[in-house]
Amino acid sequence: MASPGSELFEDTDDTHTALMRATYDALCKHGYAGLTIQRIGDEFPKSKSLLYQHYDGKDELLEAFLGFMVEHFETKAERPIDAETSALEQLQTFLDHLLDPAHDEFMCAMLELRAQVAHNENYRNQFMKTDQIFHEHLTAVIRSGIEQDAFRDVDADQMAELLLTTFHGALLRQVTTENSEWMQAVGNELDEFIHSRLLLDSS
Amino acid sequence: MASPGSELFEDTDDTHTALMRATYDALCKHGYAGLTIQRIGDEFPKSKSLLYQHYDGKDELLEAFLGFMVEHFETKAERPIDAETSALEQLQTFLDHLLDPAHDEFMCAMLELRAQVAHNENYRNQFMKTDQIFHEHLTAVIRSGIEQDAFRDVDADQMAELLLTTFHGALLRQVTTENSEWMQAVGNELDEFIHSRLLLDSS
Repeated sequence: MASPGSELFEDTDDTHTALMRATYDALCKHGYAGLTIQRIGDEFPKSKSLLYQHYDGKDELLEAFLGFMVEHFETKAERPIDAETSALEQLQTFLDHLLDPAHDEFMCAMLELRAQVAHNENYRNQFMKTDQIFHEHLTAVIRSGIEQDAFRDVDADQMAELLLTTFHGALLRQVTTENSEWMQAVGNELDEFIHSRLLLDSS
Repeated sequence: MASPGSELFEDTDDTHTALMRATYDALCKHGYAGLTIQRIGDEFPKSKSLLYQHYDGKDELLEAFLGFMVEHFETKAERPIDAETSALEQLQTFLDHLLDPAHDEFMCAMLELRAQVAHNENYRNQFMKTDQIFHEHLTAVIRSGIEQDAFRDVDADQMAELLLTTFHGALLRQVTTENSEWMQAVGNELDEFIHSRLLLDSS
């Protein structure tokens, strides 16, 4: 999953946004296992009673946080694809994001949450939603490239599934290995893949 | 990571193998979070004192288990690549294994262990070793295909990194999503990838 970055928390005056920011900060700092509602409270600049009134435990807060992220991604995905930017550039932007070594702590926390889905139906549903949003975005970008006669007439849905799976693999490897040399190799090979499989004018 | 399957535990008379089998069974049954040394003992048909004499806790046993798996994969990887079997078939076997929906419980346990590497250096080292073994195997298969004039003269190392990353992604998605429709799509797209990027005679 992509890191939401600072744009996720634009409206810092809003209490709910501030609480989601505190959840994010505490999650990055302590990881899932070390997270407690008290530690989220430590990051929350507003009245703690607000926090305890509305949420029973860390899992409820994390579910709200995942829901908050899904909404953010949905809003972004609903924006029409920019006709000025070529499909290739948009695909490249997505893939660059996939192989961004930044946001390690956040990625680590996301992976820990993902690893909990076997025990938590609500987490699972939220992650399935984010996967679906990313899948639809990728499919739309590939389709627009086909319509622009820039891409071959490939099965956009099928190619999006492969790219999304590689995206998940990059997340898993990023968090669980020390070096990042593989990342450059994967980026180069994805370029080759796009050239040999997707681009019509690959001269 | 591929499921070791039953061949991992061939020598069931051996005490260490029996202990590794018990660790495997308890891990699949209870997951990482629910695993205790007592629960491993419950699966162990031999004297429990053997277990308690040699291991202080579940993490020590799990480290031994990961080491046991690494040794198994190393032994398999050291076998020379079968000249009778084409590189394409060997690559296909690896990819089929990657997209095998079986062994869900084991995959789930492996993912939980992977998600612990930020907190456990020994786990990290073992997973980095298994990644390296898989990477070397994939690179060797691609190189042998190039030597057999079946594959294009691609950067074998680079392509192996992409396939390994996709492999990790398939593991993560398999464990964290309910449906498995994406798997067929990923398999088909990998076939297309191999045809357009790798096969010399792709007519």
